Amino acid sequence: MPPRRPPVEMASDSDSENEVVLQCLSCEEEYDPKDAGTCKECYDEAKEELKCKNKELEELKCKNQELESKASFLSLSSPVLNHSFSFSTGLLLLLPADDSSASPIPAHKNILVNRSPVFKAMLESDMSESQSGMIKIADVSCETLRAFVNYLYTAEACLNDQMAGSLLALGEKYQVKHLKTYCERFLISKLNWDKSLELFDFACKYNCKQLRNESLAVIMNNMTSFTKNDYYDDLVESNPMLIVEIYETYVRNQINTAGFH
Amino acid sequence: MPPRRPPVEMASDSDSENEVVLQCLSCEEEYDPKDAGTCKECYDEAKEELKCKNKELEELKCKNQELESKASFLSLSSPVLNHSFSFSTGLLLLLPADDSSASPIPAHKNILVNRSPVFKAMLESDMSESQSGMIKIADVSCETLRAFVNYLYTAEACLNDQMAGSLLALGEKYQVKHLKTYCERFLISKLNWDKSLELFDFACKYNCKQLRNESLAVIMNNMTSFTKNDYYDDLVESNPMLIVEIYETYVRNQINTAGFH
Repeated sequence: MPPRRPPVEMASDSDSENEVVLQCLSCEEEYDPKDAGTCKECYDEAKEELKCKNKELEELKCKNQELESKASFLSLSSPVLNHSFSFSTGLLLLLPADDSSASPIPAHKNILVNRSPVFKAMLESDMSESQSGMIKIADVSCETLRAFVNYLYTAEACLNDQMAGSLLALGEKYQVKHLKTYCERFLISKLNWDKSLELFDFACKYNCKQLRNESLAVIMNNMTSFTKNDYYDDLVESNPMLIVEIYETYVRNQINTAGFH
Repeated sequence: MPPRRPPVEMASDSDSENEVVLQCLSCEEEYDPKDAGTCKECYDEAKEELKCKNKELEELKCKNQELESKASFLSLSSPVLNHSFSFSTGLLLLLPADDSSASPIPAHKNILVNRSPVFKAMLESDMSESQSGMIKIADVSCETLRAFVNYLYTAEACLNDQMAGSLLALGEKYQVKHLKTYCERFLISKLNWDKSLELFDFACKYNCKQLRNESLAVIMNNMTSFTKNDYYDDLVESNPMLIVEIYETYVRNQINTAGFH
């Protein structure tokens, strides 16, 4: 809707004296009293209501996309349309490579094969894991591994910052794309200036395009405090090229903005 | 919004001559030209737009519910939260009992156990199917059985009237509730007067409450043609009690309606 303007009451200089002409707040055309619709209050209310409905629609559409993608992740290759049906059967045991005291977690081969192309390649070949019936996973806590396996069965996880990071890393390693997106969405929802630099580094490491863009945008909006970010010194040390990239982006943006004015 | 009334232009008998007072089509209150909002055309358009948005919202909410239920059906009991985790492994063969030439369809035990409490009871006990690794299913065509197994893996099926009926019957037999609802929704979407009596009979047989109510409503609206329905004579013969029930409902409705007037 176009911007609001006050109605015009015109003291006409035409034949009919005292003629009233009104201006519609929506289409901005003038109209006669006989063509009047609503008062301003109702117009404002209706505009507000429409805005709310549009927001609700957007949210539902997002939710719908998430559910579509969840159902698609949980769907299994079927023995009937069997181009990629897995005849793998039996249980495997998964355990953290660095924790010999952890209880192994059982999982069905056919589920692992369906959820991860990496497990598929591993289990449908003669790799040692396929022979031994055991998969040792490096750099993972027992808790994270349990959450990972649970996700492969249910597409659900109880996340906090740390768990989201660890699961995303596993999602990247085993190419469980849906899990990566799930964790990335969580991290974006928690993004703020304090975390932005660390998350930018993390996003670059694990190929998370959206998280990368979002955290970079937060950094760009806070460049005056950039060097004061808690993670700045760490990153200068561990990956100075990323710091350089951020400065380059900042300067490029400034040039572009200047160019437009 | 309240029903539309034309705006009132009042030739006032008060002090100020030619005063114009308008009536809002939405709240029905009178207002001064200085408080005017929109013209009638824009009001009508906005009303129509809101109606469309509401319809769209309803449809999205339904779709959302369907997707929630689909994802929940496809979710598997996990080895981590393992109250009902199935350690069943291996493949089974399913085949139509009445067609010895049909190719058996392989299916993973853990999928069958997850999707159907009937299969679960069958395969986690010492029943003969569990021993033989083969499940023969009576009264089913090879095509329907393939669609059934495919549904257990994907929660999807390509339906027509006949396939929906056959799959619903299997859903009832093996207590695959999600499949029943899926087929029932399809049959309701295709419901008309010609099919209503047959579908009412079908719904009673397979405990489909919603289909039963919807088909009964169609019958009630067409009672003058009741005996002319193609399925009437068949049903009088095969299940006269259902015919009696329909007549009883009709008369009860008439008494209730009369009572209200």
